[in-house]
Amino acid sequence: MVASDGNKGRDRWCYTLEELVELDKNEEHNRGEWVRNPPELPCPWRQVWDTAKNTYVPSRNNHKPLCFKRLLSLVYHFFPILDSLRCYNASKFKNDLLAGLTLASLTIPQSMGYATMAELNPQYGLYTSIVPPVIFSVLTSSREIVIGPVSVDSVLLSTMIGKLKDPHQDSDAYKQLVFTATFFTGIFQVSFGLFRLGFLVDYFSHAAIVGFMAGAAVIIGLQQMKGLLGITNFTDKTDVISVTKVVWTSVSDHSKWRPSSLILGCSFLAFILITRFLGRKHKKLFWLSTFAPLLSVIVSCLIVLKINGEHQDKVEVLGKIDGSSLNPSSLYQLNFDSKFIGSLAKIGFVIAIISLTEAIAVGRSFAALRGYNLDANKEMVSLGLINIVGSFTSCYVASGSFSRTAVNYSCGSETMVSNIVMALTVLFSLKLLKRWLCNIPTAVLASMILSALPRIIDVKKATHIWKVDKIDFLACAAAFFGILFVSVETGLLTAVIISFAKIMLISIQPGIAIVGRLPGTDEYCDAEQYPMAVNIPGVFIVRVKSACLCFANSNLVKERIVRGVIDDEADVEDPKAQSTFTYVVLDMSSLMNIDTAGIASLEELHISLASHGLRLAIANPRWQVIHKLRIAKFVDKIGERIFLSVGEAVEACLTPKMTAVYA
Amino acid sequence: MVASDGNKGRDRWCYTLEELVELDKNEEHNRGEWVRNPPELPCPWRQVWDTAKNTYVPSRNNHKPLCFKRLLSLVYHFFPILDSLRCYNASKFKNDLLAGLTLASLTIPQSMGYATMAELNPQYGLYTSIVPPVIFSVLTSSREIVIGPVSVDSVLLSTMIGKLKDPHQDSDAYKQLVFTATFFTGIFQVSFGLFRLGFLVDYFSHAAIVGFMAGAAVIIGLQQMKGLLGITNFTDKTDVISVTKVVWTSVSDHSKWRPSSLILGCSFLAFILITRFLGRKHKKLFWLSTFAPLLSVIVSCLIVLKINGEHQDKVEVLGKIDGSSLNPSSLYQLNFDSKFIGSLAKIGFVIAIISLTEAIAVGRSFAALRGYNLDANKEMVSLGLINIVGSFTSCYVASGSFSRTAVNYSCGSETMVSNIVMALTVLFSLKLLKRWLCNIPTAVLASMILSALPRIIDVKKATHIWKVDKIDFLACAAAFFGILFVSVETGLLTAVIISFAKIMLISIQPGIAIVGRLPGTDEYCDAEQYPMAVNIPGVFIVRVKSACLCFANSNLVKERIVRGVIDDEADVEDPKAQSTFTYVVLDMSSLMNIDTAGIASLEELHISLASHGLRLAIANPRWQVIHKLRIAKFVDKIGERIFLSVGEAVEACLTPKMTAVYA
Repeated sequence: MVASDGNKGRDRWCYTLEELVELDKNEEHNRGEWVRNPPELPCPWRQVWDTAKNTYVPSRNNHKPLCFKRLLSLVYHFFPILDSLRCYNASKFKNDLLAGLTLASLTIPQSMGYATMAELNPQYGLYTSIVPPVIFSVLTSSREIVIGPVSVDSVLLSTMIGKLKDPHQDSDAYKQLVFTATFFTGIFQVSFGLFRLGFLVDYFSHAAIVGFMAGAAVIIGLQQMKGLLGITNFTDKTDVISVTKVVWTSVSDHSKWRPSSLILGCSFLAFILITRFLGRKHKKLFWLSTFAPLLSVIVSCLIVLKINGEHQDKVEVLGKIDGSSLNPSSLYQLNFDSKFIGSLAKIGFVIAIISLTEAIAVGRSFAALRGYNLDANKEMVSLGLINIVGSFTSCYVASGSFSRTAVNYSCGSETMVSNIVMALTVLFSLKLLKRWLCNIPTAVLASMILSALPRIIDVKKATHIWKVDKIDFLACAAAFFGILFVSVETGLLTAVIISFAKIMLISIQPGIAIVGRLPGTDEYCDAEQYPMAVNIPGVFIVRVKSACLCFANSNLVKERIVRGVIDDEADVEDPKAQSTFTYVVLDMSSLMNIDTAGIASLEELHISLASHGLRLAIANPRWQVIHKLRIAKFVDKIGERIFLSVGEAVEACLTPKMTAVYA
Repeated sequence: MVASDGNKGRDRWCYTLEELVELDKNEEHNRGEWVRNPPELPCPWRQVWDTAKNTYVPSRNNHKPLCFKRLLSLVYHFFPILDSLRCYNASKFKNDLLAGLTLASLTIPQSMGYATMAELNPQYGLYTSIVPPVIFSVLTSSREIVIGPVSVDSVLLSTMIGKLKDPHQDSDAYKQLVFTATFFTGIFQVSFGLFRLGFLVDYFSHAAIVGFMAGAAVIIGLQQMKGLLGITNFTDKTDVISVTKVVWTSVSDHSKWRPSSLILGCSFLAFILITRFLGRKHKKLFWLSTFAPLLSVIVSCLIVLKINGEHQDKVEVLGKIDGSSLNPSSLYQLNFDSKFIGSLAKIGFVIAIISLTEAIAVGRSFAALRGYNLDANKEMVSLGLINIVGSFTSCYVASGSFSRTAVNYSCGSETMVSNIVMALTVLFSLKLLKRWLCNIPTAVLASMILSALPRIIDVKKATHIWKVDKIDFLACAAAFFGILFVSVETGLLTAVIISFAKIMLISIQPGIAIVGRLPGTDEYCDAEQYPMAVNIPGVFIVRVKSACLCFANSNLVKERIVRGVIDDEADVEDPKAQSTFTYVVLDMSSLMNIDTAGIASLEELHISLASHGLRLAIANPRWQVIHKLRIAKFVDKIGERIFLSVGEAVEACLTPKMTAVYA
């Protein structure tokens, strides 16, 4: 337990039910004193220190002596795969092998497609599916994540780096910038992890991510029009308007696109979608949807060999895949030119966040399915390391792919060995099938990428967000339209600002709730939420609805309370209302904190109520609040009318003795 | 009461104590249903509309028919002085007359001093003490505020407009800009009031204002060195470094300052401070401190006539006070040149906020002393109107002066008639004593302004803020040093940002509190705040400490809860801890709201706990929260284990039946 530090604390957490009953009987209780004299609040520096310690030293076992066992557990901590290999056996390996081979059949075409989307040669996608997964599988504590190039990062890279250097004019310089951006992405990810900023990925709200991903998917989809239609002159821009314009003008001119590409692409898109549909309907046909991409690639290659043999260049194909079969070193290709370094660092930062958000979301959802927990900070370091090493070995940004992770999980992989199997398979394919791979038609790769997009556009989640929270949906829509019509950064920034503004509004809303007693209970609740709540004659009970009674809302809260109590008295048409109330009980259970302005308002409220013959009582102040009220001497000012709960406050108000004591 | 709309609502607020006891006996209660099925939340647009209506139509009497009585009350509403004159009599007038004359004796030298501080001729200060107070006394519902030029606004005007136009090179153009800025100030103030943005002045936290005022006071004090030392070549800049440098270089050169000015200034400063000290010690000598400024002016004038008669120009005096005795029209002096209009509007905005904050704080503190309430929105309109009219009649920005309001209150003024008396006295003085007034030495005016500064630097309040709230103090210090070393805007902006960041941090802190039962009660409280709290065997009760379980904190909250419960189980050294808990009760009483990410985290928490054989129960969700949990179907997911209070949740957990029902 978190609170049970020290012996004194531990004792009181060990009572049994019988002892509790005894305790209730024996102890003399002065509850008022309990509320008014809480233990000293830890000093602010202490609080900051504790928070830091809690963040950086999550495990409470660190004080144990360093022995062999502890050393071993440290090794397992840093290389979790060793832990999982301890009880590894043939049956587990069979499962991993099967999953790995399945993954490879999916990864090879996908990786090549994503690489072309990032405006790189297809082999770089394959490279990115070799080195990063192997390294990651040694470091991660996840058991499912599949590492490799992902669509969103690919399109972000080509969009943002394309602004610095045109990939079509100087593809080598562009490639260097991509590797450098990958390096920065890795550096940022490792730093986030080391400084335990795991919470950073939480700062992009779910809603913003849903909108962002959908926007990115639309952009990716539009980019695929190039491959699907075989358009010869495509635009470098990514926003909806320019791309739509280019597609429109190309389609209207027959010489600018290839109908055969379209027919080929659409038929394979239909094939993939149908197999997926079948796979979803009949669990037994699951293998069909998994192998559909590989099947498409093989069949389309054969068709292309036939067609292009007859009519040269009828269908656009990937073309030459060059480079050695193993990842070549790209260490000397990193470009730290001062002209680009600032922009590249910025790009690295944005991609680091987006990529981590996706990867950790993927990792967490599957970890939750298997019932284990994923340490975001540790995964950040691992993901960062693979990108740093990747940038040295001709890889671009790698992350956790949702679709492949899902396949991995469905195939029943047991450990990260499946990732290693996949990487080795990709490696051998690259070595052995190079001549075949270059015959894959771009239209088929485009159809494969297109078929993955509906999963990214999460309409169900968006409607869910709309139903649950309208402002969240606003953030979602801002991210979506921002990325679609302006830029990635604009979309994200707007979404973050909306998300935070919403929290701010909720926290400082100057709302008050009239509180009534629920019949047959001692509970006092919001009368609007519980219409069955009834009043206590003579006592006006009100709850502050904000988290912080501060400069921004304290005056309004005060005015609303005064209006609620005193307007009623001033209502001349209802003479009975004149003396309705004698006490005002302020339920502070929602207040986390109060500032000097809040205390000043409470004092004004007290004076204002007193001038109308009303008495103010306070119920259930939190630690921070009662601490500040004591320092500001407000406790003395209201005659110590501070109570443990609304119930006790009301009881005290209804006891005439209290009037006598505090009159 | 706010909640008692409609008949159904009103009924349940009319129970007597006896009826309540009856009700408790009779009714069949299904408390679980009450929590899980709250009434429909008003739709968001409805909420926005209600908030707007609440802001713009504060009075609930608006539906009454329009009759003569209502018309009269409307007239009284807009011209409150008529209301107070209804029962006006000779004795009240005597008090007002006395207060008004006293005020005038204080106002005349102060106004001239502030006008020179604003780099205007002294008569403009006097003008500002004639027209604005008369108009304001007709419009305001305050009974004490004294209107006229104030020090902070004066120094702000000269600082900010001095950047646009040098007052020493082109004093006429500078004057025009001052009038135009005054006009804009008025326009902004009226708009704030009409759009009921009274809360705007609350957005500068107390702490920021304390720091800002202290910084302004230091700047004002430094500016007075010019008059006190009779320095001939002074700087236009206001920041501490430049002014200190000028003062230092001037003092080191004998020809650049006048020792006689210093002696005269210091002796009168000492005189004013001693009389004030005496007046504070002995209540009977109060008149002495009030008349000290007037006395100083008269005596110093006589001295100057003697000295300057012998040695010409030995002591610097105010010099010629020109212009007609009544406020001349300045309507055609307003300068709406497009070159300046943007800057002037910005200056008007800043001064409007600062000036309103000060005036309304002054008004409210004295209103609270007399036990009436001041409508900030109405006062804003009044203050704006006097500045608009003022800008047409050669006045500069007028506001409520704290020192003069305090004198007015102490002299026992009854109504705003004292303001009118003061204005008339100033008018006659200007007409009759013009030749005398020009002999006032600037050193004496400077000493008078200096003597008012210690009151603005509120060290007591600053130490209070330090004691109560360290982050508030940070905002205070930021405002102080910002205005001192950088600029007014920087200081204010930093303070506002710090204030809001603090609220944000409080609202999204991912804290959880372990909750225990207080012996002998049914109350469940934070175990750190109440060290006497004890555990319930098998039940882990935890309270979320933030106002909004959202994307920014939900994951951390989830992780902390899981760590709190499950780490204990994994603690191999304590075998007993293995099966400590069966239930986790999440007390949601602090949560105002939840977003989709928060709900997702709750779901993950539920799954994660379930995988360890633990059950999650929720206690006391607020309306917004339970509403969203229902929409998101979370209520069904956790098997309807949602309870009215922690007590009920614990009771249900301890009843084995629950396990049977929900297993």
